[in-house]
Amino acid sequence: MNNMGLKSKDMISAADLTKAEVDSILKEADVMLSHIKRKKPLDMLKGRILATLFFEPSTRTRMSFESAMHRLGGSIIGFSGTEGTSVTKGETLRDTLRNVENYADAIAMRNPIEGSARLAADTVRIPVINGGDGSNQHPTQALLDLFTIKVEKGLKGTKVALCGDLKYGRTVHSLIYLLCMYGMDVRLVSPKTLRMPKHVLDDIKERYSYAPVEEESLDGVVGWADVLYVTRIQRERFPDQNEYERVAGSYFVDNETLKKAKKGMVILHPLPRVDEIRPEVDCTSCAKYFEQSFYGIAVRMALLKMLIGGNG
Amino acid sequence: MNNMGLKSKDMISAADLTKAEVDSILKEADVMLSHIKRKKPLDMLKGRILATLFFEPSTRTRMSFESAMHRLGGSIIGFSGTEGTSVTKGETLRDTLRNVENYADAIAMRNPIEGSARLAADTVRIPVINGGDGSNQHPTQALLDLFTIKVEKGLKGTKVALCGDLKYGRTVHSLIYLLCMYGMDVRLVSPKTLRMPKHVLDDIKERYSYAPVEEESLDGVVGWADVLYVTRIQRERFPDQNEYERVAGSYFVDNETLKKAKKGMVILHPLPRVDEIRPEVDCTSCAKYFEQSFYGIAVRMALLKMLIGGNG
Amino acid sequence: MNNMGLKSKDMISAADLTKAEVDSILKEADVMLSHIKRKKPLDMLKGRILATLFFEPSTRTRMSFESAMHRLGGSIIGFSGTEGTSVTKGETLRDTLRNVENYADAIAMRNPIEGSARLAADTVRIPVINGGDGSNQHPTQALLDLFTIKVEKGLKGTKVALCGDLKYGRTVHSLIYLLCMYGMDVRLVSPKTLRMPKHVLDDIKERYSYAPVEEESLDGVVGWADVLYVTRIQRERFPDQNEYERVAGSYFVDNETLKKAKKGMVILHPLPRVDEIRPEVDCTSCAKYFEQSFYGIAVRMALLKMLIGGNG
Repeated sequence: MNNMGLKSKDMISAADLTKAEVDSILKEADVMLSHIKRKKPLDMLKGRILATLFFEPSTRTRMSFESAMHRLGGSIIGFSGTEGTSVTKGETLRDTLRNVENYADAIAMRNPIEGSARLAADTVRIPVINGGDGSNQHPTQALLDLFTIKVEKGLKGTKVALCGDLKYGRTVHSLIYLLCMYGMDVRLVSPKTLRMPKHVLDDIKERYSYAPVEEESLDGVVGWADVLYVTRIQRERFPDQNEYERVAGSYFVDNETLKKAKKGMVILHPLPRVDEIRPEVDCTSCAKYFEQSFYGIAVRMALLKMLIGGNG
Repeated sequence: MNNMGLKSKDMISAADLTKAEVDSILKEADVMLSHIKRKKPLDMLKGRILATLFFEPSTRTRMSFESAMHRLGGSIIGFSGTEGTSVTKGETLRDTLRNVENYADAIAMRNPIEGSARLAADTVRIPVINGGDGSNQHPTQALLDLFTIKVEKGLKGTKVALCGDLKYGRTVHSLIYLLCMYGMDVRLVSPKTLRMPKHVLDDIKERYSYAPVEEESLDGVVGWADVLYVTRIQRERFPDQNEYERVAGSYFVDNETLKKAKKGMVILHPLPRVDEIRPEVDCTSCAKYFEQSFYGIAVRMALLKMLIGGNG
Repeated sequence: MNNMGLKSKDMISAADLTKAEVDSILKEADVMLSHIKRKKPLDMLKGRILATLFFEPSTRTRMSFESAMHRLGGSIIGFSGTEGTSVTKGETLRDTLRNVENYADAIAMRNPIEGSARLAADTVRIPVINGGDGSNQHPTQALLDLFTIKVEKGLKGTKVALCGDLKYGRTVHSLIYLLCMYGMDVRLVSPKTLRMPKHVLDDIKERYSYAPVEEESLDGVVGWADVLYVTRIQRERFPDQNEYERVAGSYFVDNETLKKAKKGMVILHPLPRVDEIRPEVDCTSCAKYFEQSFYGIAVRMALLKMLIGGNG
């Protein structure tokens, strides 16, 4: 009841979650946050194993999951990059997963192919957590983003602008569902070539009868937003490098931007950032993107405990 | 007494083991299997460290050892691939091992050079477990194969066909000793160019006064075997790629094969498989190759506990 | 009081340490040594996490830190090599570190850029341990060298010769401070092109009013030294490969060298060694370089406990 029956479920897409489930995750994350602050060793997942299968480069997400699992007393097996794996011997993803489910109690996976996380969840009996499948979804990032907004600004009536690469950036594809679920006011700021995919907007419209305003310039939203959520223009997502160069320089936040900002506005970013938030912004009170990665531990601890179950 | 004095010994070749030792390993694996099923956290190897030194790609074997060690409450250090290691600075294997023995309580090693595991065992005082040395031996795989046969079919009078690449496949070089040790009836099925090495057959003859029948076609054994043990025709073991292409397509199991099979026959495979077992076979009751990797955890837990000793 | 207030400090350079601090580290290492020998599982750092960030190849130092952390009951997250990290996405070192400080209780870092460890310590609030920054400093190696000298020969009046590459070898840049701090007699033996940097000698002169004798030949010191500290002539530190070939062959220790040695002389080496100590020396009583890596676990356990604090 307390964990809304998340045990043994998967975490593939933010769109799969009910509001009651998200509520219970946020509540559990609050509890975990207080555990972290007290620094008391936990045994909740002692004897349990999380497999972190990262077929694509990642420091942040992988280490964050591993830290969360260790904080709960659990252990880690896994790999980062496919070099040392059986994939190089011609093994299919399904076969790899069917083995790993014998070794672990849950899987956190990142794979460049869209839909691979869903395939994984359909293949194995243990819980699968999507740590990013191509430019599709990244639900745990969205949950930690939401939790950060809750802690920093509250969820009620908060105005959120999603900025930058909304086409290839998987984190915003997940986050927009949660923002609309809580009835927040959302604006989308991106160059024409990098707009939020139509299928996402259609789905949002159908689920929440809501159509976010789309803009092309940051100037229009900095005076409006309580939360400015900035994303990286990812070079590796662009088939055409010329297109990349042209748009990369047009979306960035510096101290000039902040002068026009609404009082109390906070800036979030899924990280890593490159140039889109200038270093001068880091020491302002608007900058909450490093706190955000701290809250991520609490959220992932909550998820791991709820999905795996553990020793009560 | 209970563990036949395995403590502080090495596990280099299946041929080194006495029947009493194998008996005690199988018995301990049974105990571990029940521990896994009850999901109770164990502290048997708490504070102990296993070094997994994989100089060659591996997901399965490395993760299986790491999972087994974690299930016993122990910890892992190690590497996969030589890139980040001192080997790139010109250090000898012996020197690397002499350091690692100061950091760990046991070593599980995979190295492409035949005999490297024996060298390791002769170099350090802590137990060394051979996780595969070239195309030579892979004793823990053989033990988990045997344990799977015991659980699925029993060991007494069971008929086992070893099929595929018997020349380069190290798992069958280890397994055949254990099968003959328990008096099982063994047939060897392979193309002429990939037959079981003569030195192995000679050794089997001398030890067990037994000469397995050798065949070239699967058809001759599917109606006979209780256990069909299929191995991958490994591309990387072939000096000549043309030879590989020619034989790779000739040994595979599909639903047609199963129609001719003896009632209750089970199929095992050390994995990864590529094409030699068609996916359609996976959902039949013959397919036990994924269960096999599950039993592997129990067997490796048994070995780690017996070799390292731990906290009783 | 007992740990001289090391908690939450950093370990960047041996030159930062007071004698009282080094005394307390050596004392704590003695305690840890007895813990290791009794093999009793420890919970001192249970629930705590060490991030090992190795931007450069390392087996020894990384695995040694990880072993030490596990022996104390703690956990590890991290990476070895930059391939699977956000650095490949253009993230700055500071940003990487600001994230990692949210995931861990301390950082052990190796980075090829001189001064990077100091930058790290200035960036994050959690303790940073320098595991080697280019050819600059490697303080934990120096501390374990000192501890080995203490255990094997005592610190009072001991004569130490540092031999080999004193220019690029970062371990000797750290060790010389500790030797002079304890008033030991030091001689420096190297080819002209690989002498100890002038800024180090100047600093030593100023701090300890001491100027070590510099020599070019091993012959002059083998009859004098109680401790012969040999370093590898590192190929990767030489911009000019011809220069490397010329000097590499001129500094080595074999059984001939030992005939001229002072009675009871011990040989240390930070490892990995290549040819500078011949294998025939390994089985003599002079060879203490593998014991040295064993003592390293005790020293790193002491440091981790003192810096992180833990559960008392």
